[in-house]
Amino acid sequence: MTDTSDVADWWRTRIVDMEPGRIHLRGRPVQELIGNTGFAQMIWLMVMGTEITGHRAALFEAALVSAVDHGPQAPSIAAARMAATCGIGLQSAMATGLNILGDVHGGAGEQAIGVYRLCERAGPEALKDTLDTWREAHGRFIPGFGHRFHKPVDPRAPRLLGLVDEAAKAGAVPGAYAEIGRAIERQLAEERGKPVPMNIDGATAVIYAELGCPPPLARGFFGLSRSVGILAHAWEQTEQGGRNKGPIPPRYRWTYDGD
Amino acid sequence: MTDTSDVADWWRTRIVDMEPGRIHLRGRPVQELIGNTGFAQMIWLMVMGTEITGHRAALFEAALVSAVDHGPQAPSIAAARMAATCGIGLQSAMATGLNILGDVHGGAGEQAIGVYRLCERAGPEALKDTLDTWREAHGRFIPGFGHRFHKPVDPRAPRLLGLVDEAAKAGAVPGAYAEIGRAIERQLAEERGKPVPMNIDGATAVIYAELGCPPPLARGFFGLSRSVGILAHAWEQTEQGGRNKGPIPPRYRWTYDGD
Amino acid sequence: MTDTSDVADWWRTRIVDMEPGRIHLRGRPVQELIGNTGFAQMIWLMVMGTEITGHRAALFEAALVSAVDHGPQAPSIAAARMAATCGIGLQSAMATGLNILGDVHGGAGEQAIGVYRLCERAGPEALKDTLDTWREAHGRFIPGFGHRFHKPVDPRAPRLLGLVDEAAKAGAVPGAYAEIGRAIERQLAEERGKPVPMNIDGATAVIYAELGCPPPLARGFFGLSRSVGILAHAWEQTEQGGRNKGPIPPRYRWTYDGD
Amino acid sequence: MTDTSDVADWWRTRIVDMEPGRIHLRGRPVQELIGNTGFAQMIWLMVMGTEITGHRAALFEAALVSAVDHGPQAPSIAAARMAATCGIGLQSAMATGLNILGDVHGGAGEQAIGVYRLCERAGPEALKDTLDTWREAHGRFIPGFGHRFHKPVDPRAPRLLGLVDEAAKAGAVPGAYAEIGRAIERQLAEERGKPVPMNIDGATAVIYAELGCPPPLARGFFGLSRSVGILAHAWEQTEQGGRNKGPIPPRYRWTYDGD
Repeated sequence: MTDTSDVADWWRTRIVDMEPGRIHLRGRPVQELIGNTGFAQMIWLMVMGTEITGHRAALFEAALVSAVDHGPQAPSIAAARMAATCGIGLQSAMATGLNILGDVHGGAGEQAIGVYRLCERAGPEALKDTLDTWREAHGRFIPGFGHRFHKPVDPRAPRLLGLVDEAAKAGAVPGAYAEIGRAIERQLAEERGKPVPMNIDGATAVIYAELGCPPPLARGFFGLSRSVGILAHAWEQTEQGGRNKGPIPPRYRWTYDGD
Repeated sequence: MTDTSDVADWWRTRIVDMEPGRIHLRGRPVQELIGNTGFAQMIWLMVMGTEITGHRAALFEAALVSAVDHGPQAPSIAAARMAATCGIGLQSAMATGLNILGDVHGGAGEQAIGVYRLCERAGPEALKDTLDTWREAHGRFIPGFGHRFHKPVDPRAPRLLGLVDEAAKAGAVPGAYAEIGRAIERQLAEERGKPVPMNIDGATAVIYAELGCPPPLARGFFGLSRSVGILAHAWEQTEQGGRNKGPIPPRYRWTYDGD
Repeated sequence: MTDTSDVADWWRTRIVDMEPGRIHLRGRPVQELIGNTGFAQMIWLMVMGTEITGHRAALFEAALVSAVDHGPQAPSIAAARMAATCGIGLQSAMATGLNILGDVHGGAGEQAIGVYRLCERAGPEALKDTLDTWREAHGRFIPGFGHRFHKPVDPRAPRLLGLVDEAAKAGAVPGAYAEIGRAIERQLAEERGKPVPMNIDGATAVIYAELGCPPPLARGFFGLSRSVGILAHAWEQTEQGGRNKGPIPPRYRWTYDGD
Repeated sequence: MTDTSDVADWWRTRIVDMEPGRIHLRGRPVQELIGNTGFAQMIWLMVMGTEITGHRAALFEAALVSAVDHGPQAPSIAAARMAATCGIGLQSAMATGLNILGDVHGGAGEQAIGVYRLCERAGPEALKDTLDTWREAHGRFIPGFGHRFHKPVDPRAPRLLGLVDEAAKAGAVPGAYAEIGRAIERQLAEERGKPVPMNIDGATAVIYAELGCPPPLARGFFGLSRSVGILAHAWEQTEQGGRNKGPIPPRYRWTYDGD
C-alpha cells in the first residue's frame, strides 16, 4: 500500500522486525538469542546494535553490576519504596524511582565522558588547563569525582579500573580513559590537598568511554543498573508492608517556616 | 543515640549496608561482586536475596532476554520514543515507558503464576474445572495464553519451555509448571478448536514459577527486561531526531467525534 | 482519503477539534473560553463534556481547593521535593509525585463513591448491613472515613458538607450523599465508641457523587488538585536548593536488617 | 526534643502547617479557603505564596484555561491515552503524559520569559541585536514564536494579549511584556517575509512575565494546565476501552530499517 507507507514509516527502527510467529531482534531470531546470550550482552546488542564478547562484555557487565544500589538514602530508592506503599503496581513504583535519575542524580556519567574526551584531545600536558576551562564553563565540580559519603575511597572505582587495566593489557580496550581518569584524580588531589576519589559515575564512565559508547548512554545504562536496586527495594518494602509511607517517622512531622 | 533510632529504623533493609568506603550488597562486598557476578545473577541476588547458579541462573537469564522488546506498536515502546523527542532526559524517557506496564500490558505474568499454582493444587484431572472456576471469577481469557499477533505460535514460548525441560531433566527445577502450562495450552486448543499459544507472559511465568518467585516479581522482572527495549528505542529515536513526535504522521490528525 | 481513514479514526475524540488557526474544545472556540470561563469550570467542561455553573460549579471548585496539599509527610509531596533536587524538569518532578497517587494514596475517593451508591440503593435502614457486606468483601476500613492524624475532626470535611447542604437547599444537588456520608459517620462512631471522622477522600467523594461523576474521576480530580501542592512543594524545594535530597538527614542513614 | 530537630528541619516549608484538626495553607485555615477561593487563585496562593485578585487573577486564570489541550497528536496526550489502556490507575496515566512535558514539549514558555527579559533590559532599539545574540547562543528559533500547525495565527495568542492590554489599561500589570512580544512578532515577520505567529508558550509567557513569575513556573503552570487535557483524554480513552492501544492501527506495524 504505497499511499499509506508514511504511516508505517513514521515508526522506523533497526532494532526489531516482526511478523506473525517471527521476532527478529537486531537481525537475529529471538529463539536463538534465548538461552545463548547473556542478559548484559543482550542489553548491548539491543542498544548498540553490535555484539559484545570476551573482555569487553565482562567490562560492560561489571559496570552494570557495580551501580545497582546505593541504599535508601538515595532519592530514587526512597521514592520507589514510598511508591510501593501507595497502591500502584510494582512497575509504576520502579518508574517512580527511575524517573528521578536526572542531571544531578546519576547524570554525572554522561558529563564525565565529555570531560575525558576533552582531556584526551588536549593531551596529558594540558590536563590542568582542560579542567580549568571546563570548570569555568560548568562550575567547580568535575563530574565523576568526589563523594560526599565514601571517603577516602569509593570501593567500586579501583575495582572497576582494575578490570579496565586487565582488558587493556589483553588488547580488548585502549585503556586511555582509565589513564585519564587516574590523572584527573591525581590532579584534583593535588589541588585540594586531599583525595577527591573517583566515584561510581566517574568509574563507569571510564568503562563506557573505553567501550566507545555515546555519552548519553552512560545515563541510559546507569538507569538499567539502578533499576535493579529500585526493584529490590520496592519489593522489600512491599513485603514489609505499610501504607502511604512518608519520608520520616510520623511523629516528627516537618518544620513550618512561615510567619 | 537511642532516642532517635526510630529515624534510621524508618528505613530498614536487608539489601544494602554501608559505611564510608564500604558497600555490602546482600552481605557481600560490592568489589567482590564486580567482575565475578553476571548481571542476571546480580538481579536475582538483589531482589531475591539468594544466589542463583547453573541451570537455574541460565533459566532466569533466558527469561530476562526473551522479553526485552516487542516493537514500537507496544504502547510502552511508543511512549518512550515520543518522550525522547520532548526534551526530557533519557532516564525519564525510560520511566515514561516503564510506567505504562500495568495490569494489562505485561501484568499477565503475575496472574499466570496464580493460575499455574491453582492448577497445581487441584491436580491434573481437575484442570478444566480449575480453569472454569478462574474464568468465572476473572473473565474469559486465561492470562499468559493467546496472542493477537503471533499465530499460531509465539516463537519465544517453545524455546523457553525447552530450556525448562533441560533444567528439569538436570534436576535443577521441578518441571511441574512447564507441564501445567502445556496442559493448559492443550485444553484451550481443544475448547476453541484452534491453537491458543502460550505467550511471552505465560512462558516467563512458567520459569518464574519453576524458580520459586513470588507472583508479583513476574511483573518486576518483566519491567527490568522490557526496560532494555525501551532504552534501545528511546536512544534510537534520540538519534533519529524529531521534536514532539506524535503517534501518527502530522498530516493525518485525528477524527473528531463530537457534534 | 477513504482508505486511510482508519489512521485518523484510531484516535477518536469528542474533546477537541482543530484545523490551522482554529481550536475548538468541547465544541467551543478556545478564544471564547479564554477570559470567560474559570479554570475549575474548564476542568469540568473538558473532562465531563458539559457546562457547570452556579452552586454546582462552586461545589466542584471547593472540592478542588480542599485537597491541594497535606504536607511533606505525604509520599507524593516528599517524592516530588526529592525529585526537584535531582536535575529533572519541574514537570517531571510533578509527574513523579502524581504517579504515586494510587489505590492507597488518594484512591479512597473512588471507593467511597461506590460505598455511597451501595448505601443509597439499599436504603437507610439497611445501612449497617450494607457496610458489613462491604467490609466482608473488602476489609475492615470503610474508605473515606477515619484519619490517622486529624482527630477528632478533619477540618475540611464539615466545611465541604456545609457547602453541599447549601447547594442542596438551593436545589442544585440532591443532597442525598451528604446524608449518607453523615449516616456512615454516625454508624462508625457508634460501632467504635469514638469518632471516625469523614476524611478528605470521603468528603470530596460526597461532592463528586452529588455532581454525578463516575467514581474513577474522584481519583482524576484528586490528581489535579494535589498536583497544585506537588508543584508548590517542588518549586519551594527548587528554591531551597539541595542536591539528591534523601528522605532523612544524611547523618542518620538507615538500619541494616541483614545478618 | 532539641536533639532531633534536624529530622523535622530536613523538611522545611512555608506552604503548609498542621496539627491534629488544623490545616493551614500559606497561613490560612483550609476551611476558610474552601468555598471562598477560586481554584486558580488557590494555585497562585500555594505556589507563589501571595494572593492574586481582580485583573491579575483573571489573567492568570486565562493563561491556565488557554493551554489545557492540543489534541491527541501531542505526545503527552497520546501517551496518556495509551497508558489508560494498559491497566494502570488514572493518576498514573496522567503522570505518564505530564512526565513527557520537557524542554521541547511545553518548555518554551520558560525560555520565552528569558528572551522577553533580555529584550526589556536592552530596550526596544536593540531588539534585533538582542534576538541575534540569543540565536547565536541557542539556535535559530525564538521560543514562543512560530507554530508548525497554526498558520497564520494561533487563535489563543491574540485573545490572551487582548486580556493583557485590558489589565494594563486598568493598571493591574505593566503591559511591557505584551509590547515586547508583539515587537518580536513584527521583527520575525519582517525577517522571514511571512508571519511567525506568537504561539501558546509565547502568549502565556507574556502573562507570566507580566505577573512577575519566575521563569521556571511557566513550565509548572503549563504542567497544571495541560494536565486537564491529559485527564480528559485519559478518561475518554478509558470509556472507549481498548487494551494496549498502540500508536497506529494494528494492521500497519512499522518499517524495519535494518539490513
